[in-house]
Order: sequence, then C-alpha cells, then structure tokens
Amino acid sequence: MASSALASSRRTPVTTFSDQLAAAIRSRGNPVMVGLDPRAEQLPPDLLANSLLRSPERVAAAYREFCRGIIDVVAPLVPVVKPQAAFFEQLGPHGMTALADVIAYARESGLLVVLDGKRNDIGDTAIAYAEAYLGPQSVWKSDALTVSPYLGADSLEPFLKVIDQRGGGVFVLVKTSNPGGGMLQDVTADGSTIYRRVAEYVEQAASARLGKCGYGSVGAVVGATYPEQLVELRNAMPHAWLLVPGFGTQGGTARDVVAAFDSQGLGAVINNSRGIIFAHARREYSSRFGPGRWLEAVEAATLDMIAQLKAELPSISPDAA
Amino acid sequence: MASSALASSRRTPVTTFSDQLAAAIRSRGNPVMVGLDPRAEQLPPDLLANSLLRSPERVAAAYREFCRGIIDVVAPLVPVVKPQAAFFEQLGPHGMTALADVIAYARESGLLVVLDGKRNDIGDTAIAYAEAYLGPQSVWKSDALTVSPYLGADSLEPFLKVIDQRGGGVFVLVKTSNPGGGMLQDVTADGSTIYRRVAEYVEQAASARLGKCGYGSVGAVVGATYPEQLVELRNAMPHAWLLVPGFGTQGGTARDVVAAFDSQGLGAVINNSRGIIFAHARREYSSRFGPGRWLEAVEAATLDMIAQLKAELPSISPDAA
Repeated sequence: MASSALASSRRTPVTTFSDQLAAAIRSRGNPVMVGLDPRAEQLPPDLLANSLLRSPERVAAAYREFCRGIIDVVAPLVPVVKPQAAFFEQLGPHGMTALADVIAYARESGLLVVLDGKRNDIGDTAIAYAEAYLGPQSVWKSDALTVSPYLGADSLEPFLKVIDQRGGGVFVLVKTSNPGGGMLQDVTADGSTIYRRVAEYVEQAASARLGKCGYGSVGAVVGATYPEQLVELRNAMPHAWLLVPGFGTQGGTARDVVAAFDSQGLGAVINNSRGIIFAHARREYSSRFGPGRWLEAVEAATLDMIAQLKAELPSISPDAA
Repeated sequence: MASSALASSRRTPVTTFSDQLAAAIRSRGNPVMVGLDPRAEQLPPDLLANSLLRSPERVAAAYREFCRGIIDVVAPLVPVVKPQAAFFEQLGPHGMTALADVIAYARESGLLVVLDGKRNDIGDTAIAYAEAYLGPQSVWKSDALTVSPYLGADSLEPFLKVIDQRGGGVFVLVKTSNPGGGMLQDVTADGSTIYRRVAEYVEQAASARLGKCGYGSVGAVVGATYPEQLVELRNAMPHAWLLVPGFGTQGGTARDVVAAFDSQGLGAVINNSRGIIFAHARREYSSRFGPGRWLEAVEAATLDMIAQLKAELPSISPDAA
C-alpha cells in the first residue's frame, strides 16, 4: 500500500484543517457535529406549507431557511456541521445553489463545514470532485469532504493532493454505521478486515499530514453503532480524526463513543442529524415546544447532546496543551 | 447476502432500461458508449479562447456547446453516452445546469444516458441520490446511474427500489479499470475476491429484474484493463450488462473486451471518453483534421472504434432473436 502521494512533498497550509478542527472543538468545549439533512416532508410546517405545489425552487428556499435557522442556533454551541449533499442534489440546480448558500453561511457564522458527498473516482475525475468541493474557486467550498475508498489508493490520492495544495481535509469511509455495511467492510483476509486495511491507509495518510494538535487532515468515518470496532479503529488510527455517525436516532449513545476520544477529549466528532434538526418532532421536545418553536427544540436537543457527551468524556481544555 | 429488496414485488416499467439498451445497441449495430468528460484545458480552442477570464459560467457554456456538438455527431452512430458528473460539478451550479442540458439534449437526440456519478449512501440518502438522477422530477434525469458498493447491500437497495418504481438502471462498481483498484477489490477471503462478492450481488439483483433481452436493469462496471477478470465476471454475472471502461487511452483493446459479449454481441457496452471526445489532439487525427475540424475527428474516432469492435465481435442483429 505504499504510494507516492503519501510521501510527496507539499506546501503545508498556514493552519491545517486538523488544527482548525481542534481549535473549534476547544473553543466550544465539545465535539458535536450537527448533520444538515433537510427533507421536505419533515420540515417544520411554517417553513413549507403542506401544499401540492412544492416546486424544487420553493423546497430549496425552505431548505435554505431551515438550515440557516439551525446554523444561527448551533454556531455558538458546536464546532462543525455536516450538510448532506444528496438532499440538495435531489432538488436540481436550485438545491445545489441552496447548498452553496448554506455552506457559505455556516462558514461565515464561524462553523467548520464537512460536506457529506461520499464522492469517489480516479485520476483527473477525483481531482475535479476535490476542486468542486474544496478548491478555492468552489461555490460549495467546504473545509472537508467525505470520500469512498472502493476504487483504491489511486482514487484517494488526488483528493490528498488537492488538500495538500489547497488546505482542507477528507474523511474516508472506513466502517459505516448501517447494518449492511459489513457486507464488504467486515470481510477478513489474512487476518485483516477490509475496514482495517482502509484504516491503515488513512493512518498513513494522516500521519504524513500532522497538525500541531497531533492529528492529520485525513480522517475516517467510523460508525457509533459498532462500539467494539470503534475501539479497534481508534487504536489503529492514532493520528486520524474520527467522524462518528450513528449517534441518537441510529442507536449510538454517549457511552458507545467514549472510545473514540483521547485523554484530552480530542480525536473525534460525533454527528447527529435527525435527532437535532428534527427535534421538534421528537417526543422529548414536541410537547415542550411544538412545531412552531422548532428552533428552541433544536437548541434544547443540541444542549442535551452536549451534556450527554460531557458526562462521559474527558473535559476539553479551551487551550492547546 | 439475501435481502428483502432483491425479492420485493414491484411494478415493472413498460420497457425496462435493459431492453432499451438492447434495442439501442441493435439499432446502431454496435455497443460503443461515448464518455462525455469535458475538461477546460483540452477543449478545442474555438470553444474556449485561451483566456485568463475563464469564469465558471463561460466554461460551463463551452462544455455545453462541446457536448452538444459531440452528441450531434455520435447520436446516429452509437447507442449510449456517459456524462461524467465531476467535471460539471467542478463548475458549480452553472456546471450542473449545463449537465442538465447535456443529458436532456442527448436523450432528445435518441441516445441513452448513463450518468457517471459513482454515488452511494444509505437509506433515505441513497433514495435522494436515486431521485436526483433517475426520478421523474429530476432535471438530470438519466437512464441509468453508476453507484459504489462500499456501504454494502443496504446502500444499493434504495437505488433498486427507485428503479423498480420509476424505471431506469444502475451500474454497480465491481472491478474498476485503474491500477490501484485491486487494493480492496482483489482482496480474497474464503476463496472469493471482494469484486466477486459484489458481482454475486449484482447477478442476483439483475436476475430479479430481467428484460426480454435476457439481461436485467442492474449492471456492473468491469474494466477493460483486466481481461482475465472480465472473462471471470462475464461468467459470474450472466444476466448483468457490463459497462466496460478503460478502452483506448487506458490501454484496453477490442480483443481485450470480446469476452464481455454473448454470442449475439450483446451484454456489454464499451466506453471510450478521451479517445473520442479529444480525438482532435490524437496523433492519428490531428494531422488529418486539426483543431478547427474537431467534430470530424470525433466522428472518425467513433467510426474507427466501431470498426475495431466489429472486427472482433459477433455481428449484432438489428432484430431481437
């Protein structure tokens, strides 16, 4: 698995994505990532009237308003958001324009943005994806992008090349949170699972791109729904940020994700999408706030998740060690 | 690998994607797929002046004109085109609007369109991708979409659900044409490679969705650069259309891809992107046509590829057997 791009010389950005993420987590005192996954049928009713005339343009405008509202609430509370590209793409160019607006608004609001696109391809095509979402001329310019490893190392290296030149980060899918993820990821050959092989690649790539915080700008997606593998993968990738989905609605708890963190409470971000953005529809919050006060439900759900994590994690110092 | 979606009841579209593809191949008498991979720096000079003022809007307009020109030339000659999403995404919403135009124009011109997006995700998110590119309200409505299998069966089933309800097809990455593809795809456990496991899934899904032509609407991407695996995978997936990249620029020859076809010359489409769309820059054509006559170079390269394949393949009957 040796590769030229892992070792290539490069200009290091003044502040790496990795250090930006560490600083954002320290400043907020928690590692919560809010997933921005708008869905027309679950929006608060005041944002999208229950109309048959749901044009893509109107739905896109509602997604924009919905996400901006969430960003206003969570920007002072959490370090990072993760917009899901698919829901915006579903609306066509109107959706993609709304996505650009949401990303820019989140960054202006002081949040880091990891775009969840799970893109992958080879050579020039992978570079085009990296430039599309991480390049300086991108309208969807994000701080990091999720990418898929099925095509192998030479599909990941173009992304690494772009982050080395442009800054930014990538999170490679390693062990996903869905029940069927094991179909390929858990296959074991010569004593090593597929997910473990991807993890080894990520660890090498992260180690070659270390920030001052001790982690690199190449991270891994590792689901909260497999706590044993989370322990294994934390150990296998001591220099990689872990993006941990599956908290909340998918069943992962604060106790399940403790193993993702180091003794300073760094090393991972814990994503929650539906549990926060659609909190107004959750039993715990619907009676307190009702759909009209959905932003208060978002705030309460975010604060509750922060409290749940703080009860289990080492306390995070506002200053670098 | 049993799964509910593989066996679920469904409405069969009046004409399946699989039968549309067979009919298009019969009508043109060849299985050539032209890949639409525009790149600003390789466009014929009359489409995009060598200017420092290459705004995304201007480049997107040039991509649109370039692809429309190619479509005009190849629509009478070949059955199918494959636009590469990444190059359009790189230009932001202007690029995505150009992509919509190119897809619609190709379909109006009588071509089938396989969008190369290599998308993947789970649950509702995968459905959003499928609706984005195959759904009836999609502005990028294509006949089929390429998808990646790393997330496992439950990331593929939502795509199958959408094609069962809406029509259309998917091509799952099985064995890709790039040198590094083997990093995960060639890992062997219990006597079976990862790519073979994905192939078994594709064969089951294709068999459950057979058209009259004997193939299903779920196909596989299998690179021309690995002829031995092409033989193995043709045998492993007797009911799946193979989308074979890697012909031409990547080194695959007509002889290398013969094994992808059945005795009627059906069962596969052979993609060529750069070798056709940038033919004006190839030695064989540049002296004959020069950059100003780039459309004639596209035509000549297409006809040459058709002739190369016809010399090796069984002749394709214009009528179904």
